[in-house]
Amino acid sequence: MSASTTQRDDSGESGLVLTAAAIAEAVGGRLVGDGMVRVARVAPLDRATGQDLSFLAAAKYAAAFTASRAGVVLVAPELAETPGSVAVRIVVERPQEALLTLLPRFHRAPAATPGIHATAIVGSGARLGAGVSVGAYAVIGDGAVIGDGVVIGSHCVIGAGVEIGAASQLYPGVTVYSGAVIGRRVTIHSGARIASDGFGYVQRPANGGVEHVKIPHVGRCVIEDDVEIGANTTIDRGSIDDTVVGAGTKIDNLVQIAHNVRIGRACLIMAQVGIAGSVRVEDGAMLLGQVGVSGHHTVGKGARLAAQAGVFGDIPAGETWSGYPARPHKEALRAQAALFKLPSLLRRIERLLDRTPESE
Amino acid sequence: MSASTTQRDDSGESGLVLTAAAIAEAVGGRLVGDGMVRVARVAPLDRATGQDLSFLAAAKYAAAFTASRAGVVLVAPELAETPGSVAVRIVVERPQEALLTLLPRFHRAPAATPGIHATAIVGSGARLGAGVSVGAYAVIGDGAVIGDGVVIGSHCVIGAGVEIGAASQLYPGVTVYSGAVIGRRVTIHSGARIASDGFGYVQRPANGGVEHVKIPHVGRCVIEDDVEIGANTTIDRGSIDDTVVGAGTKIDNLVQIAHNVRIGRACLIMAQVGIAGSVRVEDGAMLLGQVGVSGHHTVGKGARLAAQAGVFGDIPAGETWSGYPARPHKEALRAQAALFKLPSLLRRIERLLDRTPESE
Amino acid sequence: MSASTTQRDDSGESGLVLTAAAIAEAVGGRLVGDGMVRVARVAPLDRATGQDLSFLAAAKYAAAFTASRAGVVLVAPELAETPGSVAVRIVVERPQEALLTLLPRFHRAPAATPGIHATAIVGSGARLGAGVSVGAYAVIGDGAVIGDGVVIGSHCVIGAGVEIGAASQLYPGVTVYSGAVIGRRVTIHSGARIASDGFGYVQRPANGGVEHVKIPHVGRCVIEDDVEIGANTTIDRGSIDDTVVGAGTKIDNLVQIAHNVRIGRACLIMAQVGIAGSVRVEDGAMLLGQVGVSGHHTVGKGARLAAQAGVFGDIPAGETWSGYPARPHKEALRAQAALFKLPSLLRRIERLLDRTPESE
Repeated sequence: MSASTTQRDDSGESGLVLTAAAIAEAVGGRLVGDGMVRVARVAPLDRATGQDLSFLAAAKYAAAFTASRAGVVLVAPELAETPGSVAVRIVVERPQEALLTLLPRFHRAPAATPGIHATAIVGSGARLGAGVSVGAYAVIGDGAVIGDGVVIGSHCVIGAGVEIGAASQLYPGVTVYSGAVIGRRVTIHSGARIASDGFGYVQRPANGGVEHVKIPHVGRCVIEDDVEIGANTTIDRGSIDDTVVGAGTKIDNLVQIAHNVRIGRACLIMAQVGIAGSVRVEDGAMLLGQVGVSGHHTVGKGARLAAQAGVFGDIPAGETWSGYPARPHKEALRAQAALFKLPSLLRRIERLLDRTPESE
Repeated sequence: MSASTTQRDDSGESGLVLTAAAIAEAVGGRLVGDGMVRVARVAPLDRATGQDLSFLAAAKYAAAFTASRAGVVLVAPELAETPGSVAVRIVVERPQEALLTLLPRFHRAPAATPGIHATAIVGSGARLGAGVSVGAYAVIGDGAVIGDGVVIGSHCVIGAGVEIGAASQLYPGVTVYSGAVIGRRVTIHSGARIASDGFGYVQRPANGGVEHVKIPHVGRCVIEDDVEIGANTTIDRGSIDDTVVGAGTKIDNLVQIAHNVRIGRACLIMAQVGIAGSVRVEDGAMLLGQVGVSGHHTVGKGARLAAQAGVFGDIPAGETWSGYPARPHKEALRAQAALFKLPSLLRRIERLLDRTPESE
Repeated sequence: MSASTTQRDDSGESGLVLTAAAIAEAVGGRLVGDGMVRVARVAPLDRATGQDLSFLAAAKYAAAFTASRAGVVLVAPELAETPGSVAVRIVVERPQEALLTLLPRFHRAPAATPGIHATAIVGSGARLGAGVSVGAYAVIGDGAVIGDGVVIGSHCVIGAGVEIGAASQLYPGVTVYSGAVIGRRVTIHSGARIASDGFGYVQRPANGGVEHVKIPHVGRCVIEDDVEIGANTTIDRGSIDDTVVGAGTKIDNLVQIAHNVRIGRACLIMAQVGIAGSVRVEDGAMLLGQVGVSGHHTVGKGARLAAQAGVFGDIPAGETWSGYPARPHKEALRAQAALFKLPSLLRRIERLLDRTPESE
């Protein structure tokens, strides 16, 4: 296995080399030290070397700063004078945020070397674009269409007829069933299952009980451009209509998206969320961890669902809802506050009611 | 890789060809047009061609119907006169339901070509029945027993001594640990893990704290006939006794079933449900998405648990429970309604109590 | 494929042979019968043979005992005289517990035969210790460092530069991304994903909406010694700082651990728990099934969270909290009890309020 093949799996230590001056300009910070010092990576203070950029955002890390050997450090204004021998300081408000904002510019994903690994199996009639990279033991089905520059990790299995748009990346061990259509610049993490059969059965009486007869799934699973899908997430194909994930939407790990769901553009779906069949999630909605949305409802544009919310109805656009069953967040908070006051009042209320004659 | 090999991964575009007359008879509908028109697949109106069957169930899709090129369309009675040039209409109540009921007859799962892929590894002493199909890079352990007509997808790993009954199908990337016994006509979706170790430890004092010493798992994981298991679902083997999933039970994606659980026949277990150790789920029970059942309880025959219910006791047969902690559904609804009335009353109640002298 | 290769996947039928006398001594039980009878495995009464150890803990299993052919049975004192022909009885309080306690001594994990399977791919510069076993189709990245006696199951993918400590075991189909550092005696079950990218984006206005720009993840994912990780669990790498799972912590199936989380030593994290970014879980904490902990909070040392608890704040050390939003368990129970009393009181309260003039 060549170096380039495994580098594909590396989410990345290699990156651009930036000067301290360029960094200071990018974050709008004040440079203290030699602007020509160069850094190539990012690391926390205690692991940073002279080639690393780091940050100091809170006084409790002052000692780590003093001991650090980082090349360049983003430092909060109130900590600008912390003693230490780092080569260059850049004084900036909210250094961690500045660093995160900087990372996408600073960091360069490792280039995958184009080529089909000798052990990969490509089905008959499959069409692979320019610069495609296919890892060890990957299996690509008959008639699949793989766009330019796509990276397919080792052990991925791509069903017959699947389409994957240019510059998409599949990490190792992804399964894409037939019926999937995947856009451009899509990232799919390890173990995700795309276009598996939905959970649909017709009930039929049998032997004094009921029998569940499987409904074949012939709808597609359409993943639009710039979507990211987390590790071990499952997205079912539609029964007749399609399941669709809109452009720019980001999905975390272990999420379940059922058949015929339609998710809009630029949504954020956090870990372990479950979205039942035929739900619509409109553009820009945000579903926090472990939210559940029951079937056929709509989560409106830009709505926000707090962690663990249980949704059993439509959620109006732009609102924040929480709790079980989900309610407007303020209302849910008031109900919870009242609930926790209740036990101490209950005995007094009961006594009062007992003493008060009730007129019929 | 031959065409037939990859078709195995295709959940299916090929199917029987049916005439419009046969369809009308099957759904009990009224035929309008040429009964000899033939269709071979199912598609939504906007993607249907002359070889496709589609449906029109709601007025909002009338324009799609008018523009559609479908060969045959199931149409609701009130929409029977919608203009359009589709070759044949079949007028029927609830067209979508009719189509779903029809699909299992209409649709034929793609035939997997029997044979062991050249890259598959079969352990010593393993016995494979007639017509077995084993995909690329699958690994079958020593002494495994694989029944007639079983389809094992690419990248599956089957542990030593595992038994799989006739006509079962494993999609790509399933792991079956040793200790599993799988029945006939079982379908297991990609990434499911069957018979992994349960979560069991003995606590032992160590270094001022506690140490968790693993309990080896030697019970089996028994999956009976006609079970379907969703993508990335995990089912642990028993510690000493077995874990059992009863015949005809259907399990969705990302479900967790712990050691020693016993699930009855024809249950429906929806996505992200978690069932803790030694729980019993009796025949025909239905657990909706994200339900959690804590250890050692029983969910009675035909009981129904609403989405996200948290079960901390036994559930009587035939009842519907919901909420956290789960209560009979009507009682839970009343409690929730009262809770959301409470904040507006609370201030009035507090004032009333403050004004009322409490006799000791 | 040799017998030894597949035995690796066997969580174990082989074991030590123990005499009845040794067992009686180990559990502090009273031996009835021939102390030299030997057993080699554990099985429930109905499946036990003369080579098996079993147990009888409840009267409802008396008939199974009578019919059993087990070699040695642990029997509860009140059932010591149950008729039957098993060779040896050992009378002991809580026989099942005694058996579980015994299992780790009794049972020996199957020895994996050292060696690299012919189909495994090992990257350039990777260093493998003595006695390492690498299964079929495993892919080990460039520069990875694999300690003595490590067992890597078939179909595992190990990223470039990953370190795995001595005597660790990865079951088939585990993916370890670059950026992971795994300790000694760590067990990782099938389908777990270690060091995948965290869910982190910077929002940027775009086309009238918002665009989510990925934050590259360059922190590590550190798994300390003696950790066990369940099937299909996902643990993200840190964004800049590390994600850390402390020594001796045990993690069940389908758990999500987000970026920058720090979990202490000897914690128990049960199935489907979700831990959001930057949470700290201190030593010995116990999180039951489906618990969710929202970002940046701390779960104190030895704290215990009941199943499905939703945590939106810090949890004090040593306390048990439950419910949504999580509260001290006793307080949560009182609130729930009050809630379910409320509907019957509410009408009476409303009438009382209506009859009572409210002074301003």
